Amino acid sequence: MEEKYDFGLVGLGVMGRNFILNVADNGFSAYGYDLDAEKVAALKEEGSHLAKVNASTNIKTFVKSLKEPRKIMLLVPAGKIVDGVIESLLPYIDRGDIIIDGGNSFFTDTDRREAYLHDKAINFFGAGVSGGAKGARLGPSIMPGGSKSAYQHIKPIFEAVSAKYKGEPCVAYLGPKSSGNYVKMVHNGIEYGLMQLTSEVYDLLKKAGDFSNEELHSTFSKWNEGRLQSFLVEITSKILEQKDDLGKGDLVDQILDKAKQKGTGKWTSQNAMDLGIPIPSIDIAVSMREVSALKDERIKADKLYDRPEVELLDKEELAKMAEEALYFSFIITYAQGLHQLADASREYNYNLDVTTIAKIWRAGCIIRAGLLADISEAFEADKDLPNLLLSSQFVDKVKSTVGSTRKLVAHAAANGIPLPGLSNSLTYFDAYTSSRLPLNLIQAQRDFFGSHTYERLDQEGIFHTEWE
Amino acid sequence: MEEKYDFGLVGLGVMGRNFILNVADNGFSAYGYDLDAEKVAALKEEGSHLAKVNASTNIKTFVKSLKEPRKIMLLVPAGKIVDGVIESLLPYIDRGDIIIDGGNSFFTDTDRREAYLHDKAINFFGAGVSGGAKGARLGPSIMPGGSKSAYQHIKPIFEAVSAKYKGEPCVAYLGPKSSGNYVKMVHNGIEYGLMQLTSEVYDLLKKAGDFSNEELHSTFSKWNEGRLQSFLVEITSKILEQKDDLGKGDLVDQILDKAKQKGTGKWTSQNAMDLGIPIPSIDIAVSMREVSALKDERIKADKLYDRPEVELLDKEELAKMAEEALYFSFIITYAQGLHQLADASREYNYNLDVTTIAKIWRAGCIIRAGLLADISEAFEADKDLPNLLLSSQFVDKVKSTVGSTRKLVAHAAANGIPLPGLSNSLTYFDAYTSSRLPLNLIQAQRDFFGSHTYERLDQEGIFHTEWE
Repeated sequence: MEEKYDFGLVGLGVMGRNFILNVADNGFSAYGYDLDAEKVAALKEEGSHLAKVNASTNIKTFVKSLKEPRKIMLLVPAGKIVDGVIESLLPYIDRGDIIIDGGNSFFTDTDRREAYLHDKAINFFGAGVSGGAKGARLGPSIMPGGSKSAYQHIKPIFEAVSAKYKGEPCVAYLGPKSSGNYVKMVHNGIEYGLMQLTSEVYDLLKKAGDFSNEELHSTFSKWNEGRLQSFLVEITSKILEQKDDLGKGDLVDQILDKAKQKGTGKWTSQNAMDLGIPIPSIDIAVSMREVSALKDERIKADKLYDRPEVELLDKEELAKMAEEALYFSFIITYAQGLHQLADASREYNYNLDVTTIAKIWRAGCIIRAGLLADISEAFEADKDLPNLLLSSQFVDKVKSTVGSTRKLVAHAAANGIPLPGLSNSLTYFDAYTSSRLPLNLIQAQRDFFGSHTYERLDQEGIFHTEWE
Repeated sequence: MEEKYDFGLVGLGVMGRNFILNVADNGFSAYGYDLDAEKVAALKEEGSHLAKVNASTNIKTFVKSLKEPRKIMLLVPAGKIVDGVIESLLPYIDRGDIIIDGGNSFFTDTDRREAYLHDKAINFFGAGVSGGAKGARLGPSIMPGGSKSAYQHIKPIFEAVSAKYKGEPCVAYLGPKSSGNYVKMVHNGIEYGLMQLTSEVYDLLKKAGDFSNEELHSTFSKWNEGRLQSFLVEITSKILEQKDDLGKGDLVDQILDKAKQKGTGKWTSQNAMDLGIPIPSIDIAVSMREVSALKDERIKADKLYDRPEVELLDKEELAKMAEEALYFSFIITYAQGLHQLADASREYNYNLDVTTIAKIWRAGCIIRAGLLADISEAFEADKDLPNLLLSSQFVDKVKSTVGSTRKLVAHAAANGIPLPGLSNSLTYFDAYTSSRLPLNLIQAQRDFFGSHTYERLDQEGIFHTEWE
């Protein structure tokens, strides 16, 4: 009798192929499935030396080759394809088998699928995977949500293949139902925020400090050795030294300034609004990708309006302030995203542990950063922390960097350099730390025109005034 | 035989009662329906001198009292109640009758209801009504969408009851299906933006200029006589002089700084993200209502962080700059909302005419403002204007006010006064008018970690780089 395989994977694109090779590298046998015969052949060839990799274009062969309970991961585009794959698996799988959706599925889709498969006694996991193609091959951060008991079957494989932070695997059971997809969605929202902030600081150093790409490269490289250490700062430094294959000097200068999006940032912002949690540093990152897409309008508008002559700042002083402002804004962006997660956990009964989430983000994923070790410690000290800004471990970090943020946001506003992400991080901070905001006026306006009533500072109750 | 009534109205709350009295004042007979006998009795009494007002708690009596084709307007809370009322009307109404939903229904609900009733040959309109209780009584702005031919039956009544701007009625047929509700939704999104901006300027004048409520009242009153003339500036000035009935001095100082929301601002932001249209001045207004709700967290955070000592500015100079910044930011907020409407018109086949929309907003509604006359002229001059900022009629208005906005946003950032709406209006302007943005770096990052490819400035095509 043929020996069966430990792990099955549907979808042999770059991510899927890399993930399966990673599984095999870690001592598990793995079987891939794809309708595309070329992809199947490519995997077989690439995995041949591992002896534990196989693949097929036949779904029945694929399913029947797997050990029970079968562990079948899907790495296919989010949307109807996921439903289609599930339907094609159903005739061959058995009660107790496990399907893991590793894509960026919208969390309510995951809930729907989980309920549908639960009725058939199939365990369904939504497991966000972050780290890109390289992460899938060498160790991603994995964010699984689903049945806790069924997780025990996939745990050994996921812990083996995931990235490690000082030996600790960057994967953990996060919670029931769609919690894994939800956490991955917010991860991506934070990613949008950090990318926007990085691009703004790059722009600011160029415009207000006349930094060359070489100087930018060495600045980001240096930052990556300090408290800003993070994957996004690291790749920014590498991008800035990349030469253009087509001979036009530095590649970054030839890349069109339209940034695309696949929707997870937008979903994060939209859902935060449903929850009522403010995440303006992420919202504005979504907006700026949209503004970037309006290139033709921007070119027209640029011709109609003047821009102030930029007052140049001392390079060294500017770089020092920019490092502080970027650090400050990174903290604020994580604070907003984690605030959303804590609230979603209550709203959707995910029972999330933010410490665990911060820990599995410390390596493997796109938003991995030195800062996450501090964040996980802050939540370890107070697991019910409503907002990172309220952590005693963060007060000094924030206090010591907000001053430079103020100066740079002010300088940019005066000089016509758009820093929407940094500005929103600062105004969020200033509003969140204000015991009194001017929204008493808004509530008065609402009562004036719509009789929406108001509360008072000095006594309990609901009040209405006949204003005129 | 009894004479039948011209117009029927379901829901005799403040808005409904006022609307029906408005209809009767304008020479049409009107019949109200509500399950609440007290409300029915109150309307009958209040309308008795008009001789043309009647009401009942019996739905059959109500329907059978109306002239055919019946024109039945619903002023009931959005949501399932609307569906319930429709179902309760269906047994008694006839083909060709007209139901008008005057509430803030979500536009996809309106599309669903329109399709459902279309199959029964009933005409369904979503008609946003703005102006609050007073507007309903004396003349609101009405935004109807639905069947163009059926609109002819309601046009005389709506034109009679609506607000008038220099004799022109503030109502017009806007387009098919949910276009009326959609336009009203964006109206409310703009309203959120303008209210947030007004509250920020109020706060700024207090903190950076030490303005008393009396000085604030006279400042807003004066502004309301100039280019900032608008309902919201007008009521702000009135709010600032309102004394507290409970004897605590000025009422505004006793109102709790938590601003509630009913969802239309949130919907505007969420839908703009679906369309891919940036409206950060509206998004941030939604976020700030959320921040305002976190009062307990804000009080804790305030104790943990210092705030800079505010550098006071000369009162007169500050007021002059604040007027300019508020005018600039009002323009930007309208620009964003109208940008969204133009895009939604294409996406949902509404075939909206922005000139008409700006015109019917000039009186009656909450966002009525002197500025809307200029806006309607700008769109009259170029009906396909993608963004108000590209109108030659607006370039000078913007150029002459952006300088003060820069100064105040910079001052507030440096001094710890949160001006998120003004900041977002400025950074939106600076980004929208930049032919080149730093999002080339973001697209490079996306290609680096996710092989998402990029375009180039110097040639057509899709490119990918092996970055490492």
